[in-house]
Amino acid sequence: MSILIKDVLLEGKTANIFIEENLISQIGNITVEAEHVLDGKHKAAIPGLVNTHTHAAMTLLRGYADDLALQEWLTTRIWPVEANLTEDDIYWGTKLACLEMIKTGTTMFNDMYFHGEIAAKAVDEMGIRGVLSEVFFDLFDETKGEVGKKKVKKGIEQLKGYDSNRVIPALGPHAIYTVSAEGLQWVKEFADANDLLIHIHLAETKRENDDFVEKYGIRPVPYLEKIGFLGPNLVIAHCVWLDKKDMEILAKHEVKISHNPISNMKLAVGAIMPYRELKKAGCVISLGTDGCASNNNLDMFESMKFAALGQKLFADDPTVLSAQEVYDMVTKNGGVALRMNTGEIKEGMLADLLLIDLRRPSFSPNHSLIANIVYAANGSCVDTTICDGRCLMEAGRVKEEVEIMNKAGYAACELIKRCVK
Amino acid sequence: MSILIKDVLLEGKTANIFIEENLISQIGNITVEAEHVLDGKHKAAIPGLVNTHTHAAMTLLRGYADDLALQEWLTTRIWPVEANLTEDDIYWGTKLACLEMIKTGTTMFNDMYFHGEIAAKAVDEMGIRGVLSEVFFDLFDETKGEVGKKKVKKGIEQLKGYDSNRVIPALGPHAIYTVSAEGLQWVKEFADANDLLIHIHLAETKRENDDFVEKYGIRPVPYLEKIGFLGPNLVIAHCVWLDKKDMEILAKHEVKISHNPISNMKLAVGAIMPYRELKKAGCVISLGTDGCASNNNLDMFESMKFAALGQKLFADDPTVLSAQEVYDMVTKNGGVALRMNTGEIKEGMLADLLLIDLRRPSFSPNHSLIANIVYAANGSCVDTTICDGRCLMEAGRVKEEVEIMNKAGYAACELIKRCVK
Repeated sequence: MSILIKDVLLEGKTANIFIEENLISQIGNITVEAEHVLDGKHKAAIPGLVNTHTHAAMTLLRGYADDLALQEWLTTRIWPVEANLTEDDIYWGTKLACLEMIKTGTTMFNDMYFHGEIAAKAVDEMGIRGVLSEVFFDLFDETKGEVGKKKVKKGIEQLKGYDSNRVIPALGPHAIYTVSAEGLQWVKEFADANDLLIHIHLAETKRENDDFVEKYGIRPVPYLEKIGFLGPNLVIAHCVWLDKKDMEILAKHEVKISHNPISNMKLAVGAIMPYRELKKAGCVISLGTDGCASNNNLDMFESMKFAALGQKLFADDPTVLSAQEVYDMVTKNGGVALRMNTGEIKEGMLADLLLIDLRRPSFSPNHSLIANIVYAANGSCVDTTICDGRCLMEAGRVKEEVEIMNKAGYAACELIKRCVK
Repeated sequence: MSILIKDVLLEGKTANIFIEENLISQIGNITVEAEHVLDGKHKAAIPGLVNTHTHAAMTLLRGYADDLALQEWLTTRIWPVEANLTEDDIYWGTKLACLEMIKTGTTMFNDMYFHGEIAAKAVDEMGIRGVLSEVFFDLFDETKGEVGKKKVKKGIEQLKGYDSNRVIPALGPHAIYTVSAEGLQWVKEFADANDLLIHIHLAETKRENDDFVEKYGIRPVPYLEKIGFLGPNLVIAHCVWLDKKDMEILAKHEVKISHNPISNMKLAVGAIMPYRELKKAGCVISLGTDGCASNNNLDMFESMKFAALGQKLFADDPTVLSAQEVYDMVTKNGGVALRMNTGEIKEGMLADLLLIDLRRPSFSPNHSLIANIVYAANGSCVDTTICDGRCLMEAGRVKEEVEIMNKAGYAACELIKRCVK
């Protein structure tokens, strides 16, 4: 398969982009024959976006429980529903998530949820890249830990049957308050032995940190260093409550940070991830949406604006986290965090890219494409989504989108009916 | 002219909505003949949104100056450009603003900018409702004040030539640090004598309050009360830095508040409007985008999410400013603030309403329409915009939209070229 994108705006110049198989093959004023030709006029090409923290199938809970206190939200709404999730729910929830991501320009995401093998099927069918981890917790109980380990190992085996460039197995230990030190160490060893990424939640709320310090007499980050859990293959979501020493430790071990501004604001975790300080420490920071129960969408354009504005407000300084920096977070840095040759439009990179429709008020005028992307646009500006050299969306339409929305909508209603009796 | 909207979702039920002339005439399971029939299937009807603070023609500066410190932004970027604005710029900038508002579901806005008579022409042509005030400042100089007053009076006379339901003249004294007490008193008297709204900026930054107190020994709100400026026809934008006494005074005089969360965050004014306290005091609070140089769009859907999440974050409480409350701010409260019979879909109300396309991931599933509107959607969900009984957009397309974007884009580039020599 080959694709030629003609006359598209690329980094301020008009160019043609030639895609062969799953790679960007040539860029410039080139003339080649291609099986599929896309008209790039009035469009800009940008890299596919990378979402480094979500729980895809939680799309089914979009708008189900909002404006509640965190504990009430979790215990009366989220957990009871999650206990009732079927494989079918995961399948349609993940399909809907992939659909939403394709429509809003995300071509790769880092997931942690249940039934990873079912999510893998959905991701494979939809054509985008998913780093999929079956959530792991032992609740400090050895028997539960053994059950969890078996499940994780089996899940990873099942994922090996898919295109390894798009369906990527990973480990997803939930958090330090749900997984024992022994459990975390097992995860780390298993991940290192099999060259896999690890995905965990950390320092989301102040209470979670305070409780940990009270119980164990050590802050979470030094604890994770002590047990040998930190490393460059670790992606940590949230990182709101860190002190200077924590940040130095994370940087030293080349841990990757996923900032989730919308979820943090909506659940009122009390602060914002210390961007300036983490950057100064030398950490690679990317961006995540978190799940749809706490966001309530997967639109990385919206997350970019929230990220930039949240930092400015909290720092009392409008110069913090510029448009270019936040754009880098969702492109280049996302690729680095998930160890994929994506996030830049260059010859030899994976063909993960978007065509942005510039004939919209958000891009009129177009003094700065990057500023318009970050501050004026939202995911609806994406006209064409290409992932791994395949065109997943053209002219804003994805194949079978109505069917996916209908089926997922039905599954979501039935799920709630089963839970609320 | 009559419009029949068939089989649309309205407050949880399927209904038909019949519009005659500029009013909502009948709602329910009705069968009538209409000149124009709209299919409401897979759509929800909601009121047209009201934006209570903007500077429309600043669309020309979208993305021109971001991530700068406030003073640098104003003195090196915004003011030099504004000094070069021509009538043609105002015309195309306002046309573009109206286009963007129509596309994102805003049917009424409260504006303060230059050349109100030109903005009026654009608003009139585009079909939405604009409360238009020529910005007034005397810079504490009597001569400048007289020039300003003449301009204001002339502008208001010119606006009387238009449909008085859609092009609504108002007074726009800029702020207490640019207009003298005498100037504000003149504005107040003139507005009361002519039954006009007044639109002002107040308490946007802490510094502006502190400087005032240092200079005059009184806080801005008690000062405005003392000079007799406060009243129910006053709409105040920002109101970030208020104390308890200020809020009681504003409530006592039935002053209307316009909250501008995105602009406040982007310019890093250091805090968030005290929503809970203002609500407790009894104030009517609505929502504004501010101008495109500090937002950078006019999408009220996005502003709703920023408003709700900003409050939750600052209050350390996810229950503050629920989806329903923020939805009321942009509908009912907007109508109350701008004294227009708009913001609700009821028989006898002005026919200002939107059809939302529900076949989008943001509305899949649809456990709660209001939560999806506020937290999951953005302005691109608007399929149809009706204002004053006229259909301004169908299937997401507005007449002449490409021409408006081209002309405004050209004007914006020429404007910058003239300024940066």
